[in-house]
Amino acid sequence: MWTRTVTPRFGDIDGLRHINNCMLPIWFETAREPFFRLFHPRLDLDEEWRLIMARISVEFVSQMRLGADIEIRTLVKKLGRSSVTLYQEAWQDGVLGARGEAVVVHYDFRAKKSLPLPDGIRAELEKHQIEEGDSRARSGRFAKERNPV
Amino acid sequence: MWTRTVTPRFGDIDGLRHINNCMLPIWFETAREPFFRLFHPRLDLDEEWRLIMARISVEFVSQMRLGADIEIRTLVKKLGRSSVTLYQEAWQDGVLGARGEAVVVHYDFRAKKSLPLPDGIRAELEKHQIEEGDSRARSGRFAKERNPV
Amino acid sequence: MWTRTVTPRFGDIDGLRHINNCMLPIWFETAREPFFRLFHPRLDLDEEWRLIMARISVEFVSQMRLGADIEIRTLVKKLGRSSVTLYQEAWQDGVLGARGEAVVVHYDFRAKKSLPLPDGIRAELEKHQIEEGDSRARSGRFAKERNPV
Amino acid sequence: MWTRTVTPRFGDIDGLRHINNCMLPIWFETAREPFFRLFHPRLDLDEEWRLIMARISVEFVSQMRLGADIEIRTLVKKLGRSSVTLYQEAWQDGVLGARGEAVVVHYDFRAKKSLPLPDGIRAELEKHQIEEGDSRARSGRFAKERNPV
Repeated sequence: MWTRTVTPRFGDIDGLRHINNCMLPIWFETAREPFFRLFHPRLDLDEEWRLIMARISVEFVSQMRLGADIEIRTLVKKLGRSSVTLYQEAWQDGVLGARGEAVVVHYDFRAKKSLPLPDGIRAELEKHQIEEGDSRARSGRFAKERNPV
Repeated sequence: MWTRTVTPRFGDIDGLRHINNCMLPIWFETAREPFFRLFHPRLDLDEEWRLIMARISVEFVSQMRLGADIEIRTLVKKLGRSSVTLYQEAWQDGVLGARGEAVVVHYDFRAKKSLPLPDGIRAELEKHQIEEGDSRARSGRFAKERNPV
Repeated sequence: MWTRTVTPRFGDIDGLRHINNCMLPIWFETAREPFFRLFHPRLDLDEEWRLIMARISVEFVSQMRLGADIEIRTLVKKLGRSSVTLYQEAWQDGVLGARGEAVVVHYDFRAKKSLPLPDGIRAELEKHQIEEGDSRARSGRFAKERNPV
Repeated sequence: MWTRTVTPRFGDIDGLRHINNCMLPIWFETAREPFFRLFHPRLDLDEEWRLIMARISVEFVSQMRLGADIEIRTLVKKLGRSSVTLYQEAWQDGVLGARGEAVVVHYDFRAKKSLPLPDGIRAELEKHQIEEGDSRARSGRFAKERNPV
């Protein structure tokens, strides 16, 4: 699991005086930094970048607020041939605020085709994988219980 | 269908010289304005706001760029007792760039419980509903065909 | 004068239920699009880009809100050998909400030195210049009268 | 001096593959958190908020990049009766990337008038004041030397 801390900004609040939903994809991207570094250790954009986003989703579990730091946790949910599904959570004051997934693909932008995950990176990713039995591995169960829908 | 046009900004571009994935949730929120106005005609934040986001997702279909406007189309995919699932697309140069969903709930923030959709608003929402047979009604099929995964 | 209209987004509001100050630099950048196009007609990032930001400033004159479009007006305040000072205003409901300046420099990123403004572009920029006697040409006077300081 | 560290995000980069200018006002707002807490210790938005932004400015000194943290330093430049001028810098890899000022006013939003700075807060602010002789106290000199204008 990778963790990153973000401090909510006055402007991250919206008309409801809670964190605006659009901040979560932004914070989750911030927290993918150590994941990106497995592929591009120096995050050097002059290198040929080899990652493309295929899909993101966020479930809003409880409202987050200004005035307390937020911890973003990132785990690997699924490893495909060329894609990685990341699972991410945002915690504030010991409460799960939001959780989401991001499907990122190892990709050759010139040839316009996906590339297999290199073995060394795959091994590294496996260390961050959600373990079986972990409630986070079950699809969306927890969130359903707490979402207001 | 509601439509809104956004002009990509220089800073909306990311290290890949394409529109950053985090812009899509932002643009989709912008394009939900006419939907919000059904519930809050003047978008007056001094009124008691009655909408809460439960879930958002975005699939990235093809890369978007600086230099051409983007049309955001918003339709109603599903009407629940108290929730609305919106379906949204971003088009640039006649090409689908991204599509997503947003689950929004009619909600009483004080009582902390969902509220049924008022009949008048439900009738209005039905006018914007995806029609049966529309490819957009099928779950994620189209995106799978075009995504690089 | 170039004009652009932006629709405030729910998430553009901050804890004070007004437009967050950080949105203004973003909207002003959006509104510089026609200015950028004088130098890069297609805004093609594969071309060698020749503009660099040197300075921005924003004065907040009156609070802006959700629920009404905002018009951004952009004028040329000053033309140097290689730099352009743009003057920009944000109007909502017929009231000036904010005004700012941006100093943009015609610049060779490889040689790391400024470039003279090409004559054709200079002539075009002169058409958008603030006229003498215009209150906007006076430095910051108007804002001082209305600012709460 | 207050300091805060931000990690640039992939989407903070723009078409020039450097940090987009609009990120600086955002990061500077983030870094004003300890300043805000002098007035509102818990940053509780249900309290009556008493700070309003009057002006921000940013000078871009050298380009910042993805891949290295950025330290934001915040100092008090000037104390008025009711206003505080903050001076802020963004440093990456030991190089000054940008510097700016923010004028914040102690303000009663109901009465629509400025409020004197409370003595206790003024004393606290004085501890963070730029000292005489400090190059940062000189107006814009340093930036001029390094700006590409």
